[in-house]
Amino acid sequence: MRIGVLGAGQLGQMMALRGIPLGLQFHFYSPTPPSPQFCLGQVTVAGWDDTAALQKFAASVDVVTLETENIPTAVLTLLEPLVPLYPTVAAVTPCQDRWLEKQLFVKHGFATNDFRLVDTYAQLQEAAQHLGFPLVLKQRRQGYDGKGQVVVRDAAELAALRERAWQGYLAEAWVNFSREVSLIAVRNRRGEVRCYDLCVNVHQDGILVRTTVSPGDAYFEQARHYVTTLLESWQYVGVLTLEMFQCRDELWCNELAPRVHNSGHWTLDAAVTSQFENHLRALLDWPLGDTRTLAPCVMHNLLSHLPLPQDVLAQPTARFYDYGKQPAPQRKLGHVTVLQ
Amino acid sequence: MRIGVLGAGQLGQMMALRGIPLGLQFHFYSPTPPSPQFCLGQVTVAGWDDTAALQKFAASVDVVTLETENIPTAVLTLLEPLVPLYPTVAAVTPCQDRWLEKQLFVKHGFATNDFRLVDTYAQLQEAAQHLGFPLVLKQRRQGYDGKGQVVVRDAAELAALRERAWQGYLAEAWVNFSREVSLIAVRNRRGEVRCYDLCVNVHQDGILVRTTVSPGDAYFEQARHYVTTLLESWQYVGVLTLEMFQCRDELWCNELAPRVHNSGHWTLDAAVTSQFENHLRALLDWPLGDTRTLAPCVMHNLLSHLPLPQDVLAQPTARFYDYGKQPAPQRKLGHVTVLQ
Repeated sequence: MRIGVLGAGQLGQMMALRGIPLGLQFHFYSPTPPSPQFCLGQVTVAGWDDTAALQKFAASVDVVTLETENIPTAVLTLLEPLVPLYPTVAAVTPCQDRWLEKQLFVKHGFATNDFRLVDTYAQLQEAAQHLGFPLVLKQRRQGYDGKGQVVVRDAAELAALRERAWQGYLAEAWVNFSREVSLIAVRNRRGEVRCYDLCVNVHQDGILVRTTVSPGDAYFEQARHYVTTLLESWQYVGVLTLEMFQCRDELWCNELAPRVHNSGHWTLDAAVTSQFENHLRALLDWPLGDTRTLAPCVMHNLLSHLPLPQDVLAQPTARFYDYGKQPAPQRKLGHVTVLQ
Repeated sequence: MRIGVLGAGQLGQMMALRGIPLGLQFHFYSPTPPSPQFCLGQVTVAGWDDTAALQKFAASVDVVTLETENIPTAVLTLLEPLVPLYPTVAAVTPCQDRWLEKQLFVKHGFATNDFRLVDTYAQLQEAAQHLGFPLVLKQRRQGYDGKGQVVVRDAAELAALRERAWQGYLAEAWVNFSREVSLIAVRNRRGEVRCYDLCVNVHQDGILVRTTVSPGDAYFEQARHYVTTLLESWQYVGVLTLEMFQCRDELWCNELAPRVHNSGHWTLDAAVTSQFENHLRALLDWPLGDTRTLAPCVMHNLLSHLPLPQDVLAQPTARFYDYGKQPAPQRKLGHVTVLQ
């Protein structure tokens, strides 16, 4: 079987590293070339607007999936009639837009922080009146790793934003959370569902820096209810990740990722079946693997520059991953999972 | 760092699958082409007698290792002055020859079954007199997976062998073993040593069919003594595997493999650090990883034909590996490890 992957970054790479020994082959489609030593399958480097290249890509594979949700909807709607595409356009579309995501949470009755759509400065003022300070302005689309986010702390900071264009923003009430958590779940074509243990995440400047797996977490059931409701409502296929805030004794839904997720990298080394393998198994309608945690562990993202492997590995239970990427400030270059 | 691997079979493949995320690149040298979808690094297809190709291969990598011990000594002695080669010729040579192996066991005072060198029929008769029936005739060199082995049950069977040429055989006394076990150990360049838990193996027709890991085994210490004695005597670098028989309350040494080993495939999914990763870390003089068993498990070899992955994976804790090889009778095509 040949798996088509939209994107050729570390998430696709980790899918292939687990998929190759399952007898699968990979074809990556990416507008930007991967690192020169990338060797885990065929790579098509072409733009999202290259219809001929997309059609050829679709014809070359048995199923298509994605490693980022920030793909133009036109690409997904072009591909969907040509080749099985999981997750489907219907599931990916709301995950591309914080406004649609929020409406989804509200529709299903999930707890989430209050929000207002902001397309003008007047709407921003109105949102501030309603939500109070501080508030967080987020781009509806294309935001990730804290990009496109602004914290507005008071009226003076608000006034300073008067001259900016506000098309396509969301204002969100500030959340006094005790923890940031995520739940990674997977559903295959025949409807089997499995969830990993709850992940407790720490972000710095909007970027995930650390995940600790939390087996037996008291909030697992609430998170499981949220995610499985979404999986069933979409008849979703593949891995779906929900990021949440814990506020007092409740989880508030924050953000969806219709894909394998950074907060699930620990599953490579400390779960029976990794999120990457279960995602592939879901696409192919193979039975899903056990998601049980084998060892408590903490995953650290390696940002900006990569330490020497021999230094990281001086800790004997450290599991090191180098994504083979060029260093850049705040860029995710690798990760290390330390098992207890 | 670029790792050169002599051979391009499943053992090299599994090294690369773990080495790539460690930031390593691979160059395989093999007289036979790997499967067409093999994509984990550069491959040189050239004979063991192709000096120019071997020199070019050596020049292209930082260190060379092997995935089979059945490589002409001339190849290893050609490479050793050109590039760091681990394990060294001094360690590989005795592992290529059952007679040298046996002498090594005797020299170190390790228990092993009695044996006689057989180069003529007269020597075979003499061996039978000394060792009794049944006895096992084994080729000194190039034997693996039970190839080149003959069981002689009585005088009539012995007489039937009169016309055969016997150059380069070893006659061994029959072993009434209660278990077949192996110990996989690893030593890095600075001399750190780690052992995995004892493996309990079942062979059929000389081919490994099943390995069960045995944490806390009562015989671990004796096996550890044997292997670490050899590692130290050779200043060995890399993974070394010792196969043993348990006879009454003692382990008898049977066979050495100077490499990662089939009975250690379970370490991919059920140990903190796999044998493949620790082998690479040893070559590079990186610190060795924790060899602790994370979950009790059983590894089954998939011989002759490969079942459908979806059938194997119906068992949720099954970990499936397809080597991408053409099916052939008794050929190792893949394996599955089932975690408890």
